[in-house]
Amino acid sequence: MKIQHGDLIRVEKDGVEYEGIVMPSTTHHIVLKMSNGYNAGISMENAKITLLEKAATDQDIIPAVIPQVKAINKGKLPRVSILSTGGTIASKIDYRTGAVTASFSADDILKAIPELREIADFSGRAIYNILSENMRTEYWEKLAIAVAEEIRNGADGIIIAHGTDTMMYTAAALAFMIRTPVPIVFVGSQRSADRPSSDNAMNVICAAKVAVSDIAEVCVVMHGSESDDICDIHRATKVRKMHTSRRDAFRSINSEPIGFIDYLTGEIHTHLAYNRRGSCKLELQGGFEAKCALLKFTPGASPDIISYYIDAGYKGIVIEGTGLGHVSSEWIPFIERATAMNIPVVITSQCLYGRVCDRVYDTGRDMLKAGVIEAEDMLPEVALVKLMWLCKQYNDLDTIKKMMVQNIAFEISERSIE
Amino acid sequence: MKIQHGDLIRVEKDGVEYEGIVMPSTTHHIVLKMSNGYNAGISMENAKITLLEKAATDQDIIPAVIPQVKAINKGKLPRVSILSTGGTIASKIDYRTGAVTASFSADDILKAIPELREIADFSGRAIYNILSENMRTEYWEKLAIAVAEEIRNGADGIIIAHGTDTMMYTAAALAFMIRTPVPIVFVGSQRSADRPSSDNAMNVICAAKVAVSDIAEVCVVMHGSESDDICDIHRATKVRKMHTSRRDAFRSINSEPIGFIDYLTGEIHTHLAYNRRGSCKLELQGGFEAKCALLKFTPGASPDIISYYIDAGYKGIVIEGTGLGHVSSEWIPFIERATAMNIPVVITSQCLYGRVCDRVYDTGRDMLKAGVIEAEDMLPEVALVKLMWLCKQYNDLDTIKKMMVQNIAFEISERSIE
Repeated sequence: MKIQHGDLIRVEKDGVEYEGIVMPSTTHHIVLKMSNGYNAGISMENAKITLLEKAATDQDIIPAVIPQVKAINKGKLPRVSILSTGGTIASKIDYRTGAVTASFSADDILKAIPELREIADFSGRAIYNILSENMRTEYWEKLAIAVAEEIRNGADGIIIAHGTDTMMYTAAALAFMIRTPVPIVFVGSQRSADRPSSDNAMNVICAAKVAVSDIAEVCVVMHGSESDDICDIHRATKVRKMHTSRRDAFRSINSEPIGFIDYLTGEIHTHLAYNRRGSCKLELQGGFEAKCALLKFTPGASPDIISYYIDAGYKGIVIEGTGLGHVSSEWIPFIERATAMNIPVVITSQCLYGRVCDRVYDTGRDMLKAGVIEAEDMLPEVALVKLMWLCKQYNDLDTIKKMMVQNIAFEISERSIE
Repeated sequence: MKIQHGDLIRVEKDGVEYEGIVMPSTTHHIVLKMSNGYNAGISMENAKITLLEKAATDQDIIPAVIPQVKAINKGKLPRVSILSTGGTIASKIDYRTGAVTASFSADDILKAIPELREIADFSGRAIYNILSENMRTEYWEKLAIAVAEEIRNGADGIIIAHGTDTMMYTAAALAFMIRTPVPIVFVGSQRSADRPSSDNAMNVICAAKVAVSDIAEVCVVMHGSESDDICDIHRATKVRKMHTSRRDAFRSINSEPIGFIDYLTGEIHTHLAYNRRGSCKLELQGGFEAKCALLKFTPGASPDIISYYIDAGYKGIVIEGTGLGHVSSEWIPFIERATAMNIPVVITSQCLYGRVCDRVYDTGRDMLKAGVIEAEDMLPEVALVKLMWLCKQYNDLDTIKKMMVQNIAFEISERSIE
C-alpha cells in the first residue's frame, strides 16, 4: 500500500486514533489535515495505518517542498529586491526616530540579519517612509509601479517591508493591480527590533525564502504562531490583522493560508494550489479611486450617511452589513438612490467569516431589488480595495457589478458545502 | 496527592503527554485547559499524573456544576419568562411568514420542545416582532423595561429569543441598562426549525438550563461547536457573531465564555467567575442616545466624515482604527474639533482581538492629545452601545471619558501579560 498526499487515512498509535488527509511532509512524521481543520504530525514508529480513500488524481498532489529559483549562473544566488515603505524589518532601522529613509539600504538589513546572505542576492530601495495608517491609494499605485520596475530589471522576487496596520489593504491593492511572474512578499513586524520578543528577523528570513520560491503571488508572510516555529504565507486578498499586538496577528479568513515556512528547516509546505513562477507575464492594470467608502451598519443607524456620500461625489460604497449581509429596511431606498445614480453599492458582512448570501428574509430580497452587489465571501476591506480598483477603470454599473462578483485575485472562494 | 481545580498538572497516558490547568469536571474524566487554549478530556484509567503547580488558593476554584434554582414549593419548578422579539426559537414559529406575534405563546414552544417542561415552568410574551437588522435603540429600552417587569413579577430567569444578526448589540445594551439578580439569557437560531440542521431546540434547552442556574448575568447561549455537544455561555459585552452561517457563529472575544452547557448531561461548567443569583437588587438605569456613530477608518479615508457627524448633531463617535488604534494624521484635527465641541470620540480597533494601547508612534500620541478616549479591549460594537448609554445620561465630556474606560458590565478585561 502506497500512501500519497491527498489520501484519506486512519492512523492508530499508542491507543489513539487519528483520521485525516495526508499533507506534504519532509520529515519521518506523517502530517494529517484533520476534520477539525488542524494538522497533526505523527511519528510513524509503531503506527498502524489504514487507507480509507485514495486521492482523486496525481494532479491534486501538491509538492512537499516548493522548489527555489535555480542559480542563474553557477554559484550565483537569485536576486531579491527589498522595497521599504516605512515598516521596521531590520534592527538598525528605528521606526520611531523616522530615520528609516536615510539609513535604508540592503547592507543595513544584511548586517542586521546575516542569515539572508545565504538565501539571495539582495538590493534595497526606499519607496517612501510613512506610518502605515497614513497610507493612501496613490501610494499603492506608486508601490505597484516600483515593484513592476524591479521585476522588469530582473528581480527573481520582491519583498515589501510594510507597517502591519494597513498591510492587508496595500497587499490586496497590489494583488488586483499586478499580474506577477515572481513572488511579491509583504512582511512586517509586530514588535520592534529593540524588544527581545521581536519577530522581525524571523519574518524577514521567512519572507526571503518565499521570495525565492515557486509561489508567484502577492502574499503576506508573518508569524503563524506565538512560537518561533512557523511563518504563514497568506494570500493577499484573504488576510486580515486579527489582533492588535500578538506576533501571529495575521490570519487567513475564509481560506487556508497558501502554506507555511518551517523556520528550522527553511522548507515551505503548502495547503493550497498557487500560481507558479513564470506562469504569466508581468502586467500592471489600473489604479485606485480614492472616493469609495466603507460603511459599517449598526442597529438604528441613520441611512442619511448614504446621501452624504452621494452628495460628496463618491464613486462607490461598500457596506458592512449584519449576518448574511443585512441592513435595516430604512436603508433600502437610499441604496436604491445610489444605484440609480450609477454608484455601485456592495454588501459584505461584519461577521468577517462566511459568505454573504441566502436572502430568505424580506430586507435581503429588497436589497437585491435595490441593486446591491453581493461580495460573496470577500472581506469588507478587500471589497473596498477591489471597488476602488474597478471604479478607476470603469464607469458603468453593469461592468462593475459583473467584475465585482468575479474572482480576479483569489478574493472570492468557491462555495463549499457547510 | 490531591488534585484540585486550578492545579497545573502533567498527565501521561498511552505514551502521550498532556499539560494544563485542571478544569471543573463531573465525570471520571479529567478536563485540562491546555496552553493552546483548548480543553482536553482524558480518562483516568492507566494515566500517570504529576502535579506541577498548586492552584493559588481555594477561592480560585470554581464549582464544577452550577446549582439550579431550588424548587420554591415542594415539586414546583422555577419560573422562566420567554420574551420574543422576532427570533425563531420553536418550530411552530416561522420567521418568514411574519406569523410570530400572532402565534407566540409558551404553549407553542413547549409543544415544539417538550423537554423544556422538566426544566422550568414557562410563560411567554411577545415584546415585538421585527427582523433583528431593524432593531433600534428605543427597542432596546422597551425590552429592558419588559425584562424588569418580568423579574419584579417573580421570574427566576429570563430567556430572550432574538434574531442573531444584531443580538450582540441588544445583549450589550441590556447588560449596561440592567443590574439583574437572575439570569437574562439571549438565544437565537442560525438555521430555521424546518431545516434538518436546525440549532434552535438545543439552543433553547441550553438557554433554559442557564435561565434556572446561578449565573445572574446578561448572556448569550448558542452552539459552542459545529456538533450538537455543547452550547457556550457568552458574556453579553464580550460576544460577537463571527460567521454568517455556522451554528457556532458566536464567539467570545478578548475573554473566555463564562462557561458551557454539556447538552448530554445538562450540566453547566464554568471558565470564569460570574455574578451569582440574588447577589444584587434589580436596577434599571438610563437609556440610549441614538445619535452616536461607529466609523471604520480605512487607508486614505477622508476625515470630512467627522465634520458630517458633528454638523448633523451627533452626540458621540466611535472610530474603528487600525492596529493598536490608529487613524491617519489628517484625522487628528477633526477629532480635536469634535472633542472641543464636547463630543466624545472613542477609539477601538478593527483587529477586534487585543487591546487599544501602546502609543509609541506619532499619530497615536497626537490622538491622545486631541482628546481621544481609548476603549481598552472593548469590541467596537460594545463601545458604541456603551457610548450611546453614557451620552443619554451625561452631558459633560469628563464624566463620559471617565466612565468609558471604567469596567461596568465586564466589557473591559483586566490587562494580561501578552
